[in-house]
Order: sequence, then C-alpha cells, then structure tokens
Amino acid sequence: MSADRLIYLPLGGAGEIGMNAYVYGYGKPGKERLILVDLGVTFPDMDTTPGVNLIMPDISWLAANVDRLEAIFITHAHEDHVGAVGRLYSKLKAPIHARPFTRYHAQRKMEEAGQVPEAVITAGVYPQVIEAGPFKVSYLPLSHSIPESAGLIIDTPAGRIVHTGDFKLDETPVLGDAFDEELWREVAKPGVKALVCDSTNVFSPAPGRSEAEVGPELVTLLKDAPHMVVATTFASNVARVKQLADAGKAAGRSVCLLGRAMRRMVQAGIETSVLHDFPTTVTPEDARDIPRENLMLIVTGSQGERRAASAQLARGKYMGLSMAEGDMFLFSSKTIPGNERGVIRIMNAFSEMGVELVAENDRYHVSGHANRPDLLRVHEIIDPQMVIPMHGEHRHLREHAKLAEQGGRSSLVVVNGAVCDLTGDVPHVVEHVETDRIYLDGDILIGALDGIVRDRIRLALNGHVIVNVILDGNEPLGEPWVELMGLPEVGKSKAPLVDVLEQDLGQFLMRASNKTLRDEDKLGDELKRIARKSTNDEIGRKPEVTIVVSRLE
Amino acid sequence: MSADRLIYLPLGGAGEIGMNAYVYGYGKPGKERLILVDLGVTFPDMDTTPGVNLIMPDISWLAANVDRLEAIFITHAHEDHVGAVGRLYSKLKAPIHARPFTRYHAQRKMEEAGQVPEAVITAGVYPQVIEAGPFKVSYLPLSHSIPESAGLIIDTPAGRIVHTGDFKLDETPVLGDAFDEELWREVAKPGVKALVCDSTNVFSPAPGRSEAEVGPELVTLLKDAPHMVVATTFASNVARVKQLADAGKAAGRSVCLLGRAMRRMVQAGIETSVLHDFPTTVTPEDARDIPRENLMLIVTGSQGERRAASAQLARGKYMGLSMAEGDMFLFSSKTIPGNERGVIRIMNAFSEMGVELVAENDRYHVSGHANRPDLLRVHEIIDPQMVIPMHGEHRHLREHAKLAEQGGRSSLVVVNGAVCDLTGDVPHVVEHVETDRIYLDGDILIGALDGIVRDRIRLALNGHVIVNVILDGNEPLGEPWVELMGLPEVGKSKAPLVDVLEQDLGQFLMRASNKTLRDEDKLGDELKRIARKSTNDEIGRKPEVTIVVSRLE
Repeated sequence: MSADRLIYLPLGGAGEIGMNAYVYGYGKPGKERLILVDLGVTFPDMDTTPGVNLIMPDISWLAANVDRLEAIFITHAHEDHVGAVGRLYSKLKAPIHARPFTRYHAQRKMEEAGQVPEAVITAGVYPQVIEAGPFKVSYLPLSHSIPESAGLIIDTPAGRIVHTGDFKLDETPVLGDAFDEELWREVAKPGVKALVCDSTNVFSPAPGRSEAEVGPELVTLLKDAPHMVVATTFASNVARVKQLADAGKAAGRSVCLLGRAMRRMVQAGIETSVLHDFPTTVTPEDARDIPRENLMLIVTGSQGERRAASAQLARGKYMGLSMAEGDMFLFSSKTIPGNERGVIRIMNAFSEMGVELVAENDRYHVSGHANRPDLLRVHEIIDPQMVIPMHGEHRHLREHAKLAEQGGRSSLVVVNGAVCDLTGDVPHVVEHVETDRIYLDGDILIGALDGIVRDRIRLALNGHVIVNVILDGNEPLGEPWVELMGLPEVGKSKAPLVDVLEQDLGQFLMRASNKTLRDEDKLGDELKRIARKSTNDEIGRKPEVTIVVSRLE
Repeated sequence: MSADRLIYLPLGGAGEIGMNAYVYGYGKPGKERLILVDLGVTFPDMDTTPGVNLIMPDISWLAANVDRLEAIFITHAHEDHVGAVGRLYSKLKAPIHARPFTRYHAQRKMEEAGQVPEAVITAGVYPQVIEAGPFKVSYLPLSHSIPESAGLIIDTPAGRIVHTGDFKLDETPVLGDAFDEELWREVAKPGVKALVCDSTNVFSPAPGRSEAEVGPELVTLLKDAPHMVVATTFASNVARVKQLADAGKAAGRSVCLLGRAMRRMVQAGIETSVLHDFPTTVTPEDARDIPRENLMLIVTGSQGERRAASAQLARGKYMGLSMAEGDMFLFSSKTIPGNERGVIRIMNAFSEMGVELVAENDRYHVSGHANRPDLLRVHEIIDPQMVIPMHGEHRHLREHAKLAEQGGRSSLVVVNGAVCDLTGDVPHVVEHVETDRIYLDGDILIGALDGIVRDRIRLALNGHVIVNVILDGNEPLGEPWVELMGLPEVGKSKAPLVDVLEQDLGQFLMRASNKTLRDEDKLGDELKRIARKSTNDEIGRKPEVTIVVSRLE
C-alpha cells in the first residue's frame, strides 16, 4: 500500500501566459482529493485560431475525476484566471471561492453561461481558512493590476504551499491591498514546502515600480493639454482608471468612460466597495455638449482590439464622439507581445487625424507583475523548500527555475499536463495527463485538434475550389460545374480559371473508365487531383478542393 | 502656359515601412519627365493577407506614364527597396541603376522573373553623375545595415534634392562605407532644396550606435560558450555576419552558414568585392562530424519565419543538424513589430530543448537607421530648404516633420499617392493619384481591392457551407446535398449539422413556389439565407455559403 502524496498538476498557464488552471491533490496515488486554482481563458489570433471566440484549457482529466474535486479557488478577476468559470462549470460543479470583487466577475461569467451564480462563494482573507478535503486554504491579499488579487496559502498534511497567483510588490498600490512584508513573513514562519510562483517578469532586471508613481505623471501631462484628452488602459486596472479620472478632474475636465468593460469594471469596484471617491462621470450623450478642452475620455482598447472604443475612435465615431486635430491620445498601458499590429494600426489612424500620441510605457504605465529582483526577494521572504515557477511561457519558467536554483533552492519546470510530486525533498514529475486546448467556436466547444480550425487556416492560405459533378448511372450528365472562393479569376492562360477547370475535369470524365466512375472514392480523388493540378498550373497555388458527386439513379 | 515644376510622388513607403517606391518629376505639369527611386516589396501577414506571397506597390500611375520615365535608381539591396524590380519591370522597361552589390541582387530578381538582367546597370558613386532627362543623379555612399547603401544627390533645374535612402551615421561600420561628414558637407555646399529623409528611428531618443560596438561583445560571449553556438541575424547584414563568423573563429570554432539567404548574401559580398577575409566555412555535411563545442552555425530566420533555418532547428532538424541541451542560440537582431509571435514561438521551442537563449538587443545588435539626434544632425549638415520625411508609418513621418519644423525648416507629411510640388519655397500637395497595393498571389498579380483575399479571410473566420441542389425542370430532384469545411460537425440539436441543414433546405424546396424555383437569383438568395440562419441557430456562427444549383433540362 502506497503512502499519501501531494501533487501539483497545471492544466493551463504553465508554458504559456494565459488560461491558468492549476490542480493540487493530496492522498493515495490516483485517489488524491483535488482542488483547482483558477480557470481562465486565453485569446485567439488570426495566425493560429481564426474565427475562434475564446480558448480554454482542456479539463477532460479533471472532469473525469470530478468526484475527487473539492473546490475551486479563483485568485483574481483577470480573464486568464476567471474567464472559463462559466463555460466549464457544468463539467466541474464544485464550489467556487473568490474575494468579493473577483466573485462579482465570476458570477457574471456564470450568468452569461446560464449557470447559477450562487455557486460562487465569498472568500475572506488570511487568517480565515477554507477547508476543502485535506486542504486548508487562506487568501493572502497582495498587489497586482486589478483589485483584490490574492495568493493562496494552501496547508496540506505534507506541508504548506504558497501559490502566489499574479502579483507585484507594491507598497503604495493606490487602491486595494498593499504588499505587506510582515504578513508574508508570518505566512512563511511555519515553514513553506513549495512556493508556486508567477514568472511573467523574470526577464525584467530592475525592481518593479509602484502604481503610485503614475499618478503625478498623469497630472503633469494633463495639466497643459490644450484639447480633448483620450486615455486608454486595461479596464480591469481600476487603480489606473481612478488615477486617470483623478488627473482629468484635477485638470478641470469632465470624465467620460467609454466601452462596456470600462464602465463595468468601475461599477464592480463601486458595488464591491473596493473603489471609493471615483470622480463623477458624464455620459457620452452629455460629453458631446462639453467643450473639448474640458473633456477627458477613458476608453477600452489599449491592445488595439478591433471592436473596442479606441479602435472605433480610430476609424471615426464612437457613441457620437470623435477625435480631432490637436487632441491627445494616451496609452497608459503596454502592448502585450502579439498585439503590436493592432496597436500600431490605431496609432497611425490617430496620427492621420493629427492627434498627439503619447505612448511612453515607462512614464505612464507600470507592470502588475514582480520583476526579477522582486521574485528573488519573495524567494527569500517565503524561504520555501522548493520553487515551482508558473504563469509563464516555457522560457520564463526555465529562467525562473534557474534563478531559484542559483539561490540554492530546488526547482523544476513543470509544464501543462505534468503531474509533479511535491511530497519529498525535491519536486519530480511522476506522470503526464492529456491536456490541450478547447475552443469556444461560435457557441460550440471544439477541441484544438479536431481539425476544424486547421481547415479554416487552409482555406485562408489556399482558397477553395468546389467541383460539382452529376452522374446518370455511370454516365456524366453535362459538364462539371466549378465554383471558386478566394482565388484569382484568371490565370496564366488568360481564360477564366473556372472554364479551364471545367474543361480539364470534363475531359477526364469523358475518358474515365466505368470502373473509375463507379468507384466513389477513386472518382473523388482523381477529380481532386486534377482540380489541384490544373489550378496550380494556372495560378501557382494548390487550393483546397471539395468534390460533390451527385448520382441520379 | 504654366511653368516647369519639380514634383515628388511616393507610390510606396510613405505611410508604412516597406515597399518603397518614390517618383520625382520635372517639367510642365502633367508632362514632367520622371525618375523612380527604389521598387520594393512588403511582406504579408495572416491577419490581413493570408496566402499572399508578396506585396508590391501599385504602380498603375507610373505604368500609364511610362513614356515619361527616364530611369530607375535602387538605393540598396534590402527587399523593401529592390524586391519588386523583377516582377514589375515589364511594366516600366526603364534602365535600372545600382551599385555593384545592389546590382547583383537586382539582377537575381530580374532573372527570377524572366527578365533580362542586363537592364540593371552598375552605378559609380559621387562625384560620378548619371543623367536621366532633366535629372543629374549621383550615388552618395553611406552606412546602413547592408553593404553599399547609398543616398541619391538629385540635381534638377529647380535645385538639388538629397534623397537619403535608408541610412545611419556610422563612422566605423566594419564593412563598406563609413559616414563621411566632410563628403556630406560638400554635397550640401551648393545649397539643398529638399532633404527627403529616412524616418524609421525618429522615436529613438539616443544617438545611434556603431556596428563596430557589436564585435567585441560577440567575442566575449562566444569565448566561454561550452557547447554549440547558433546565431541568427538578418542575412543581408553582411557586416554582422562577418563579425559573427570572426567571433566564432576567434573562439576556435568552425563556422557553418545555414539557410539559402545567408549563403547567397555572403556569396554576393565576395563576388562584388565588398566582403574580404570572410573566415572559411564548412558545409552542413562536414559540420555534422565536428565536435559541437567547436562549431558555430550562423542561420537565417531572426524574425521567426516558419521556413527559415532557425524555425526548422526549433522544430527539430535542419540539414542533418539539431540543437541540444546546453547549446546557445543568439539573436543578433531585433524583432520587427508584428513578428513577435513567430520569434517567441521559436524561443520557447529552444527553451524546451534546454538551449540557452541570448536575446539582448542592446548588446548584440545595433540598428541600421539614424536615430532622432542623428536625424537632427543631418538636417543641420545638409541644411535644406525643406525636409520631406519618408520611409515610415504615418506616425513616424509626422514626428519627423515636427522635428524639422522645430529646427526652423519647412516640412510636410507626404503620403503615398500625394503629388508634392517642391518648386517653391514650401512644399505643398497639388494632387493625388490612385495608389494601393498589388499582391503576388501564387504566380498571379492581383489588386488588394479585388476581394480575393477578403474572401479568404472570411472563409478563415466563418467557415464554408456548400449547398448543392439539383432541379429537374422546376422540380427538386432528391434532397439538397450539403458539404462543410472549417465548421463543427455537430451543433446544439446534437444531430450532425449537415443533416440539419439538408433537412431545413429540403423543407424549403418542397414548399417553394414554381416562381421561386424558376428564379435563379431568388432561389440562390433564399437557400443562402436559410443555410446561414440554420447554421447560426445550430452553432452560433454565420458561415460563408456557396450555392450550386444544377438544372437538368
């Protein structure tokens, strides 16, 4: 009979920045009682996931072991931590714990997916304890770029785990929980087995900067702005939104929030009492009547998202408001790698309008994640037996593990699907479970490997030829009919591509043996081969081909 | 009768970084004699141009006025300056001038496109003059990130223009032409009407750094590398390739060049005598037998391009060589905005192999463009009447114009298609010509607005439903037949989507009036409407639909 063990199993977030989902287990091997920390989404892109709405971790393994799942803990309300709660809840059905601001958002996710929002329960903070099977879990308030972020103190019979969630060491975060070194030292005192730790900024060499540094810069910037000011930031960064609004107010401007997420986040902050003294705002309707030099818009779309307020302003009007020459557009944000094209697109659109762009990341933005020296400081304060890097691409995890090892601690890169045994003195991977990604595609959940999105990518790269053939018994009835989509109409022979294909396919049919005409598969393969070859001869491209053979009997 | 005028007309490169093509004209309005400076390409991306091979400026205006075109001048051999020469030559047929290294590449482009390479003529440098109608043109050697870059001194009856091409102020460029302030002052002496100037790095506040600073850093880095070293850079940066190879040699390593472009650029450098003393290289076959710690690979693919050597190494093997734990991979390059995803993809793949990544842009790379203080210095040295910013997105051009105006010079943002009159004391736009982009799509040239690529994007976002209906006279023969591509197979009703669509369409056909069945357009519209609605009901997505109605008579 084998002994109880403590395991850690990331299903998402380890080897990527996005769709966080971390499982902890304690008990007999294969029978561990489980908890899940976070259940987030990641966002699609045209390169790899065209047409996909959202990407979620494949939780099949967890769903298959759902009878062992005690509870779900959400660390904070960013989409990559809470976004999949609603869509995946039906497979898990465990109680969901979250602090009030996070709970507010988790409940909205539940409602949107037709689930009961009451499944999300308010979590208090340390020293309050939530019992979940063999686990005793406390929320450790910490600073990040959204209100009420928390780490988790997870006590198990095999020792204490500190799971940081996303965090930075900010002693003056403007709003919400400041970094409290005393508290962290108290948490460390009984001895910590494993620090499971955010790795996002491991490559940033300087200590992180405080949110409070941004405010005075904003005040200075806005003081002398002669025309309308429009600022964008992550809507969930409520502290930043407040600092922007305060700076607007200080400059004698009326503040108007544009974009659904922006209004919802401020609303959530007020309703859950994390946000106080937010300046009175005006509606977009009222804003139209306010002199431009007295107006400040705070808008969604810092990443250049096509449907957000910023992009709509860049294309023309949004809610009856538009930018004009001499206005200022401020990015109080950084561009997440991969979003450059979208951000640059709106920058140039504003430039064409004569708008003054301000995009100095170092002055008007600070990161929400702990930088390299901050991570080292946390390693030292928590002084764990082992450091398990999480929340990072592989290169971040690897660098973070090296950093921990340089500090004399054991560490291990544990990627999605790897079951890591934390019971002994050093972590080691004991097995692998199947993990991947699930796509929300329209309203349907599909697997990343289902081939559906791969087909769409092929259509985008190669275009589509549709060949329609009617057989009367084994006799071709009339000519083949060809339709094109996404392909040039005329190729090298200067004749319409459709005509060339219909002719080549018609000649093949005329010469084809009865045996070929009878054999559905063979006939389809031959027609496809000819369609691809003739298209390639004409336009230098092998298209996707769909063959429809109708047989009249 | 109107007076002669001097005009400037960018057809590409002004409002974007890429596909440079600048026209100058002198003469009676509408009858100016013309020269073209550069004829480059830009590269497609999945977001906006899936499946496209290359993007070129639409030179319809120039082609329509080709009898007025005297000559084409290529400033340097980067793809965004020379890449379209071969493909577009047949529309222009004017002599092409280029310095030897650039000529080498222009001739390869001509050959690849089936044109006579002899149309490309070797250009000497200042004070040598090339006469082209009313223009007297001299090549001004300058430093950039490719050998034999040049600006153009364009003398016209209305005054002297200095067209910088791409440049930096590098007094120690390792290879090729150093910045020669004396020479520039000499060029400025007669007085310069217009400085048409590179704007790429106008947002970079510090003075540019010399290529020579990179070499010692590379030597230091390689000295202690314990395993194989693989370095990537832009193949065209022959000075960098040489510095990498020299550093490898200094560390006692055999050097192997991987990737077609890498070998071709070094070959071109040697053949045109711009490159001397390049270390002896080994073939990939020989490299396999050399101990890894004595080997250095210099590879293509600094931008993460999927087919380049770096990406192939990241996926496994290339030419029988592969990376292993402890090897080093060096990016001696920067990531061009928009290429982040591809670069990050290979970084993480290497990280998974245990490869040490070195990607410190500031240490192992320097830019090839003049930074903001360098631009100011050039404004001062050339001391032109007006500064026309080029080679930049709109935001770069605008910032550069502001910079010039702050220095007391007149300036104007002139974008693609704008005809700018330079004759008077200040530049002004007098008309606009149609410009856009041409895509090389497979082997075919198509217009950006032809809708072909737009259809491919729609297929990628929405998937494709093909509906096949056979009518015998006005009588439906059998059931409609539906094929899907890029769509989930099963929707909300849990029945196959194909079945649901065939049923809904079949019911419509059964009920359809003879009038509808007779009306080809109406029938198609109705079938499409139903297919879209039923698909949307089932899977929450409105697909692209192709209707094929076959009528037996």
